[in-house]
Amino acid sequence: VKIALAEDLGRAGDITSIATIDPAASARATIHAREPGIIAGLPLVAEALDQAGGGVALTSFVGDGDPVSAGTAICDLNGSALTLLSAERVALNFLGHLSGIATLTGQFAAAIAHTRARVTCTRKTIPGLRALQKYAVRCGGGSNHRFGLDDGILIKDNHIAVCGGVAEAIARAKAHAGHMVKIEVEVDTLDQLREALAAGPDIIMLDNMALVMLREAVGIADGRVILEASGGITLDTAVSIAETGVDYLSSGAITHSVRNLDLGLDIEISG
Amino acid sequence: VKIALAEDLGRAGDITSIATIDPAASARATIHAREPGIIAGLPLVAEALDQAGGGVALTSFVGDGDPVSAGTAICDLNGSALTLLSAERVALNFLGHLSGIATLTGQFAAAIAHTRARVTCTRKTIPGLRALQKYAVRCGGGSNHRFGLDDGILIKDNHIAVCGGVAEAIARAKAHAGHMVKIEVEVDTLDQLREALAAGPDIIMLDNMALVMLREAVGIADGRVILEASGGITLDTAVSIAETGVDYLSSGAITHSVRNLDLGLDIEISG
Amino acid sequence: VKIALAEDLGRAGDITSIATIDPAASARATIHAREPGIIAGLPLVAEALDQAGGGVALTSFVGDGDPVSAGTAICDLNGSALTLLSAERVALNFLGHLSGIATLTGQFAAAIAHTRARVTCTRKTIPGLRALQKYAVRCGGGSNHRFGLDDGILIKDNHIAVCGGVAEAIARAKAHAGHMVKIEVEVDTLDQLREALAAGPDIIMLDNMALVMLREAVGIADGRVILEASGGITLDTAVSIAETGVDYLSSGAITHSVRNLDLGLDIEISG
Amino acid sequence: VKIALAEDLGRAGDITSIATIDPAASARATIHAREPGIIAGLPLVAEALDQAGGGVALTSFVGDGDPVSAGTAICDLNGSALTLLSAERVALNFLGHLSGIATLTGQFAAAIAHTRARVTCTRKTIPGLRALQKYAVRCGGGSNHRFGLDDGILIKDNHIAVCGGVAEAIARAKAHAGHMVKIEVEVDTLDQLREALAAGPDIIMLDNMALVMLREAVGIADGRVILEASGGITLDTAVSIAETGVDYLSSGAITHSVRNLDLGLDIEISG
Amino acid sequence: VKIALAEDLGRAGDITSIATIDPAASARATIHAREPGIIAGLPLVAEALDQAGGGVALTSFVGDGDPVSAGTAICDLNGSALTLLSAERVALNFLGHLSGIATLTGQFAAAIAHTRARVTCTRKTIPGLRALQKYAVRCGGGSNHRFGLDDGILIKDNHIAVCGGVAEAIARAKAHAGHMVKIEVEVDTLDQLREALAAGPDIIMLDNMALVMLREAVGIADGRVILEASGGITLDTAVSIAETGVDYLSSGAITHSVRNLDLGLDIEISG
Amino acid sequence: VKIALAEDLGRAGDITSIATIDPAASARATIHAREPGIIAGLPLVAEALDQAGGGVALTSFVGDGDPVSAGTAICDLNGSALTLLSAERVALNFLGHLSGIATLTGQFAAAIAHTRARVTCTRKTIPGLRALQKYAVRCGGGSNHRFGLDDGILIKDNHIAVCGGVAEAIARAKAHAGHMVKIEVEVDTLDQLREALAAGPDIIMLDNMALVMLREAVGIADGRVILEASGGITLDTAVSIAETGVDYLSSGAITHSVRNLDLGLDIEISG
Repeated sequence: VKIALAEDLGRAGDITSIATIDPAASARATIHAREPGIIAGLPLVAEALDQAGGGVALTSFVGDGDPVSAGTAICDLNGSALTLLSAERVALNFLGHLSGIATLTGQFAAAIAHTRARVTCTRKTIPGLRALQKYAVRCGGGSNHRFGLDDGILIKDNHIAVCGGVAEAIARAKAHAGHMVKIEVEVDTLDQLREALAAGPDIIMLDNMALVMLREAVGIADGRVILEASGGITLDTAVSIAETGVDYLSSGAITHSVRNLDLGLDIEISG
Repeated sequence: VKIALAEDLGRAGDITSIATIDPAASARATIHAREPGIIAGLPLVAEALDQAGGGVALTSFVGDGDPVSAGTAICDLNGSALTLLSAERVALNFLGHLSGIATLTGQFAAAIAHTRARVTCTRKTIPGLRALQKYAVRCGGGSNHRFGLDDGILIKDNHIAVCGGVAEAIARAKAHAGHMVKIEVEVDTLDQLREALAAGPDIIMLDNMALVMLREAVGIADGRVILEASGGITLDTAVSIAETGVDYLSSGAITHSVRNLDLGLDIEISG
Repeated sequence: VKIALAEDLGRAGDITSIATIDPAASARATIHAREPGIIAGLPLVAEALDQAGGGVALTSFVGDGDPVSAGTAICDLNGSALTLLSAERVALNFLGHLSGIATLTGQFAAAIAHTRARVTCTRKTIPGLRALQKYAVRCGGGSNHRFGLDDGILIKDNHIAVCGGVAEAIARAKAHAGHMVKIEVEVDTLDQLREALAAGPDIIMLDNMALVMLREAVGIADGRVILEASGGITLDTAVSIAETGVDYLSSGAITHSVRNLDLGLDIEISG
Repeated sequence: VKIALAEDLGRAGDITSIATIDPAASARATIHAREPGIIAGLPLVAEALDQAGGGVALTSFVGDGDPVSAGTAICDLNGSALTLLSAERVALNFLGHLSGIATLTGQFAAAIAHTRARVTCTRKTIPGLRALQKYAVRCGGGSNHRFGLDDGILIKDNHIAVCGGVAEAIARAKAHAGHMVKIEVEVDTLDQLREALAAGPDIIMLDNMALVMLREAVGIADGRVILEASGGITLDTAVSIAETGVDYLSSGAITHSVRNLDLGLDIEISG
Repeated sequence: VKIALAEDLGRAGDITSIATIDPAASARATIHAREPGIIAGLPLVAEALDQAGGGVALTSFVGDGDPVSAGTAICDLNGSALTLLSAERVALNFLGHLSGIATLTGQFAAAIAHTRARVTCTRKTIPGLRALQKYAVRCGGGSNHRFGLDDGILIKDNHIAVCGGVAEAIARAKAHAGHMVKIEVEVDTLDQLREALAAGPDIIMLDNMALVMLREAVGIADGRVILEASGGITLDTAVSIAETGVDYLSSGAITHSVRNLDLGLDIEISG
Repeated sequence: VKIALAEDLGRAGDITSIATIDPAASARATIHAREPGIIAGLPLVAEALDQAGGGVALTSFVGDGDPVSAGTAICDLNGSALTLLSAERVALNFLGHLSGIATLTGQFAAAIAHTRARVTCTRKTIPGLRALQKYAVRCGGGSNHRFGLDDGILIKDNHIAVCGGVAEAIARAKAHAGHMVKIEVEVDTLDQLREALAAGPDIIMLDNMALVMLREAVGIADGRVILEASGGITLDTAVSIAETGVDYLSSGAITHSVRNLDLGLDIEISG
């Protein structure tokens, strides 16, 4: 929020409002949804108002994670007009972006609600916003994958190639990792899956497999390990992938290619 | 880049690669486009590699602003395997996001190339990335609007309401603004447009006007001022809006609701 | 303020007061002017007291931009003696420096009040304090020029030389600049002035011209563009330059070569 | 330097040079003095060039602390035109300000060179620049007083009033201070001087005393302690104060009310 | 390293060396161990030298994790005397502290090398140094527990009490945790152990159990879960605890109560 | 505190408590000593609670510098359970470490209380914590040496070697140092001591001298200078060294090789 306000206020602040509005003027504003979705980011609205000068009271009508319809009032803002106008764009940029993520995640979650699978995010996030984006994924009903390279081991094809095989890669990972660290391995074929199962990782990622192969993989694993399907999954393909019986569907798009939730802010300034 | 690497490397770094790869191993990777688009963000790829430890040479085959087809090789990376794997995700997150913006902007620019209009961005950006996003807009052939609240005056309906009219709002702005600051005013009706024209701002924003009204506005203004059309403009509606004769089309969507350009990275590790 | 307190308090704080004064002691202090001037920086006094530990109430008798005589009480400070002594020097350093700028600017403004011209600052500021110094210029009745290299185009002799002429330089600037950016060009001769006028910049800077040439330039421009006179302008020369009819006089000295306003702080510690 | 470049380059950099100059162009510039003085701040010129992008070679003809005449070439800059133009103003702002301090300090030092006294600075500095300003004082031949409230004890009238006397204040200071900390006490009268001498501080500050009283104080102290004269000392009054036999003259004006040394930068851009 | 150098160099740098040593002088130094131990922190020595000004070449004779005897030369430093003296204390403070941790960890590891158990650290670290301390633990042959509250779930007695039982606490953790997060639960009794085993956590911490109870716990768990013994473990008690058959011994003392490894630095300055 | 909380809370916060505890739950906790010692760091406990979210009231039963017995209650914490659990470890890490320093310092101070000597710390501190560690030394009854290289001159053997002798080194130091800076010189022999005494430093450090030599040194100095004994001083050797009549005993071990004071925190969560 601090960085976002700094990039918006720059060196001289909101020169338009300073020129046209009495510093003592007060304002009342309402943020509402212009389309249905799931809200995420309300604490950042409060934070933006506080850091931009304070003196604006926030009354929320919904909470993070709540669904809204088109027209639903999300919150009222009441107080200093200058603060409100200075923080407005930053507040809406956060709320619109994070609610967009929560909404898209919620659409995935609803689509696969009849299966055992959950949707999970990746490290394909927009730089600088990862923790907030992952929070929005949780608001939308999704689950979180690794937050970074350091809080879980994910052995990919490159690591396997260097180690000379799935088994050796997992063995090296087990030797190095602390006992609080989970180990996941990415496999492209059913042979690699069988080799991985023998080596005992915590999770196996099934990368870019066709539906029929995914179904076979679920049968081979037989509940002995967590299975995560990955690779260009869209809202359209999610249902049939989830119905194969995997435990997780991971999607980069829910954090890196998101449409903002369309929000409106009506403001009335007095005095 | 520094913040992005910090959020990805966390407290313990790339523990998977540390566990499985020889610190002295070298690698060679190629980044290529998986779909057509316009590239933006290559200097950030270089910066990410440098900050993640250095020792990786970058050879670019295209430059920022260049169009690519599906399959085009964008750059080669050659050097330390550990550095490359540590910086890979951050580099692709920047390059994919900014190229997505450049590509979408480029689609707007191509669609209206036969008109006098140019597409321009807004302050509806993703928090923390505004300067980079605006750079990507320029790479895509778009123009930049204000970078923040402090480097230009944009009088909106709230300011007009407080001042009691367009003319008074512009008068206050002129009295306060330094002589290097441009003044833009947003109008919703042709009456407001006429009042604004009389007060002499540098730019007039025509907000959410229908095509027929936009055409009439262009006639009224008659070249005396820069005209900017605004309000939910999409690729579909851009052409007819541009053909009304306005000078700029501003779009928040080209920075806040963008699909990453789909990029691939193939890596080969030796030793 | 944070940086200023850090450089003053260092690693161990105000060791003199810690050694000699009861942590619970309270104090009452008055800041007064020892010479006539214009005040700027009172919010920084409050900020310094807050950041140095808080618990000191500030009562202001004048506001930023107000003129004071020798002896005028500016504000009362009342509360924790340790906080007051820790913040005193930082507070006075800010208030004295910014009031010095406001005072000098006010002297320029008063001298040319009978003309159409206003005094404006430059980028010749003391490193790290630019935004505050420009605020003090406004308090003194001056106007602000660019805040940095990025919020306005100012074409100087070097740019003109590279481009091969005034017209080409302005053309390039217009092609690159966003529509919210003003363009100023510096000219040394009346021929350059005529070439510039034809190319249509927003402002023309008349650099180091003699009075007679300035007068001729005003006639040639004939109100079609904003004219700014520049180059070693002092309080002595300002009047006759302003009387030539130019719109702005720019001065680096009002920010880089300023005498602090002489302030006194009387303090009484109890308990 | 980092902060100074950030405030000058802002969010979009040097948009004038970007618009008008080929990124590959090279330039050659010379900084020279336009008036006599003492140079301070050359390492900051180098730092500014490096941080603004590098690729500019600096060749110095004088060093910090060296005197220059009007017209003396100080250094040559040779390399990337864009870097040079981006860093030029920041570099000159530092060099002009610090050389101004060195020059004024040098004038004090020269005036009192025939006495035992040296000129020393105070904590009355421009916020954020204290360490650099004190360095410039040393370049000009002055000595440094405390860098902050934490690296020396200076007992002032307020501390004395609270403690109930000079002797008690010094006693408390000695009890608290580490053995590496010097203790100075400010006295206004000869009685206080005698009381202070008995208590054994390291330095005694004679505050705002008339010449005749200063002379008497020097006699009383008789070399047993370092004596520092303080209070509104100007170049005019410095000589006679120094001739009273005190060891130090402290001056806030040499850091807070300084005229920049007038510097010129001639630049030639090729290609 | 940056913070450590800042706190040591302060506002004026190494004033002793500046006063006594020619800026162009070069020096040659050797760091050696004065007692046997395991080295950790050599990259920080290099970093401190670089950040303090550079120009000093480091030649290491051992690497991090290597054992040394009393008298073993660890590295040679060769270059600028001023840089070397400025960075010396910071470099030794890091190297001594981290080598102290590695050495103590190595003593634990050696003592229990004949068992299946490994020693692991905790979150009881010295504020600000956690990642470095955990690195030193690895250099000494220990394993790492959680780096923070966010990269693993550790259910303690408080959490169990609030949830109303071990089973419920684990159930809540499983419902909330992402699939890359491991779950550990702390138990005080064998009944809690049995309840925990039924709920299926990844690790069970046996807190403050007597040897006989630990042995019984190992029998009950029977290899189905990782067991970690915890609670005031010292070098003296480690062996018999490890011999009970647990997998990990966790110790806060190896990071929070460590004696620096005794190091010497001999320096020879020339010119 | 900010850095310490950041390294503990990471990117996702206290995920265990978030998963198992109602955000509205309140808690009551007591911190008590498990062994006798001297407390230091209570303000950091308050700061950690504030920065971790606030809403927890702290009631202290002892103050910094107070001695405690095993079992003594130090403070009560009452409020938000989530805040309390998030800040608990950071608070205890600070309090345990600093109280460890105060306790060890207090043991030195008690052992030599019958002599004129005081124990003082050095620059051998744990990186990043120097100011806090030195504060803890004062809480334990010790005195502070230099805070960094910049707030006092300490001439060591290297400086002497370069200068060609003790006298020349002191002379150079006097010429360079400001008048508020104390000068200490380290001597290894009685000849060096005599040479130093003649040159008039403020303090002489007697490095690694045997008891008999220390006694002789005290005789030679005869009260003309402050004497500081240094070099591997332990609690065992402190008494006899102090009894030689030196003024200060400096010890690196009281800051770099400290055992945490053993503290317990009992917590009860309701709701």
